Amino acid sequence: MAETNLQILLKRRPQGAPVPGDFDIVESAVPQPGAGEVLVRAKFLSLDPYMRGRMSDAKSYSKPVELGAVMEGQTAGEVVASNHPGFAPGDQVLGGFGWQRYSVRPGAALFKMGGDSAPLSASLGVLGMPGLTAWKGLEDIGEPKAGETVVVGAASGAVGQVVGQIAKIRGCRVVGVAGGKDKCDYAVKELGFDACLDHRGDLKAQLAEACPNGIDVYWENVGGDLQAAVLPRMNDFGRVVVCGLIAEYNDTVARPGPNLRLVLVKRLRIQGFIVSDKDGWARYPGFRQQMVAWMGEGRMKFREDIVQGLRNAPEAFIGLLQGKNFGKLVIAVD
Amino acid sequence: MAETNLQILLKRRPQGAPVPGDFDIVESAVPQPGAGEVLVRAKFLSLDPYMRGRMSDAKSYSKPVELGAVMEGQTAGEVVASNHPGFAPGDQVLGGFGWQRYSVRPGAALFKMGGDSAPLSASLGVLGMPGLTAWKGLEDIGEPKAGETVVVGAASGAVGQVVGQIAKIRGCRVVGVAGGKDKCDYAVKELGFDACLDHRGDLKAQLAEACPNGIDVYWENVGGDLQAAVLPRMNDFGRVVVCGLIAEYNDTVARPGPNLRLVLVKRLRIQGFIVSDKDGWARYPGFRQQMVAWMGEGRMKFREDIVQGLRNAPEAFIGLLQGKNFGKLVIAVD
Repeated sequence: MAETNLQILLKRRPQGAPVPGDFDIVESAVPQPGAGEVLVRAKFLSLDPYMRGRMSDAKSYSKPVELGAVMEGQTAGEVVASNHPGFAPGDQVLGGFGWQRYSVRPGAALFKMGGDSAPLSASLGVLGMPGLTAWKGLEDIGEPKAGETVVVGAASGAVGQVVGQIAKIRGCRVVGVAGGKDKCDYAVKELGFDACLDHRGDLKAQLAEACPNGIDVYWENVGGDLQAAVLPRMNDFGRVVVCGLIAEYNDTVARPGPNLRLVLVKRLRIQGFIVSDKDGWARYPGFRQQMVAWMGEGRMKFREDIVQGLRNAPEAFIGLLQGKNFGKLVIAVD
Repeated sequence: MAETNLQILLKRRPQGAPVPGDFDIVESAVPQPGAGEVLVRAKFLSLDPYMRGRMSDAKSYSKPVELGAVMEGQTAGEVVASNHPGFAPGDQVLGGFGWQRYSVRPGAALFKMGGDSAPLSASLGVLGMPGLTAWKGLEDIGEPKAGETVVVGAASGAVGQVVGQIAKIRGCRVVGVAGGKDKCDYAVKELGFDACLDHRGDLKAQLAEACPNGIDVYWENVGGDLQAAVLPRMNDFGRVVVCGLIAEYNDTVARPGPNLRLVLVKRLRIQGFIVSDKDGWARYPGFRQQMVAWMGEGRMKFREDIVQGLRNAPEAFIGLLQGKNFGKLVIAVD
């Protein structure tokens, strides 16, 4: 275990796609916990598409990361030293520690893990923010009913794989969309999706074939060409859950979106959300219990793409925005 | 009273804006009611923007009017002859009789009026389909809360005037948008809106001034430039009630719409609806009772633009799509 801290800072705001030079990698002293604080050593760092938004200073739902500050991110780690009665060295904890090896946080900002058999890294994906995002978005907006057709973009990604599997459990026809044969095979053969379309092919024709009864729920992770191909196939009273727009995050000029005549004529509901809205993490315990149960029954699978070494986080993140990961992208922090 | 029927038929489908030659005006024999049927003479015909959709064969929520068929429309009239036990000559009734003087309909398709003091023509506007549209859309989608800012397009129109007044009763700041000083003065001085913006002016600047706390509910009657100016000013968790897009109905090519990044970042809800959705007219009795009560208290005003003579319906309808009417457009059927 290293005895210095390692931190990845935002050096400058990207123009379009981020490049390695937008980040600074620095070594610094390990911080010391003050009163009520806890020193945590990260074991896993979650990399997620929303972080692209934090790198820009365009208005968004959260403040941008300041230039020169540690990149934000959720981390699972182990307590090294504690000045908080609720935590002791060796405890496994979850929190927003950022892209760094060591961090000091108030005990109240930590969530203690270990009540069930799930591996620690899963709490950053299927059992973490992406999983809860899928759960809440389907429950509150998607409202899939048995027999309906659900289309999920980025189907093998952290959120998409959970969305599709919950929709299958709810009795829906689930059609994923992903980049390339391997991801599509995984979605159909491992996750049990009814079909998965390669977005590099002719989306319009593939959607027509895979969704003969139209589309009732579109889980929007992607935007761009996929959105344009899906929306005209929506059924009356369809729901579009706007969770992400990964294909557009590097755009420097916003693309035109859908004309709202479609929304009127088909009485669609298009709604955006983020996991921390409304009741925030209040549903997390119930979510986790059900997900762990499904995992035990083999009905909820997950795939992680674990990259070794914190220094590789910038490159891995750049690849995430290009769809190079296969499964939930996690950094194993050395 | 004329002894022949007068009918306005759809002659051809408009290219862009409708022109008088798209309609046929014909005289024919007065029809005779069969078993269980009622002969009604129209007194008032409602002209509404949705009818533009019925003239096209593009897929929409209702079938188009067939070429050569009577134009669809809701009418208030008087029973002339009845073979149905529920109706007698002289009864005032409401129904979808179309653009014609006389019509025969099954008794079950009629709604008998006259239980309260409201004038007959009001049942085509403030107490009719447009009023119920405002009521249901606000209740189900807009959900205005006291202190919120509500922006209403086509503010002096049949739906807009009711939307704004209900929102005022609910304690909202109401900002209308209309075409010209007279309509805006009416919205503010008569209907009690907090402000009304002339869409012929600089909408962006006017909205910034009139909505210092942003916009929580946008009642979309218009589309086009107004939509583009309003959406960037929506507050987090704002609702866009997509009721109509009158500025776009004559477009032959759909305009680009809003990029959904806004929906994601602000967690907007954009939802379309039509009055007949879900429970249809089941809420009509409660709606009418409340509206008549508000009218009695002077809290619900309405303005009608009554055009004399059924032969003038095509020209009046063409003007409606150009915003030439001032208040709910109704034809007094001669």
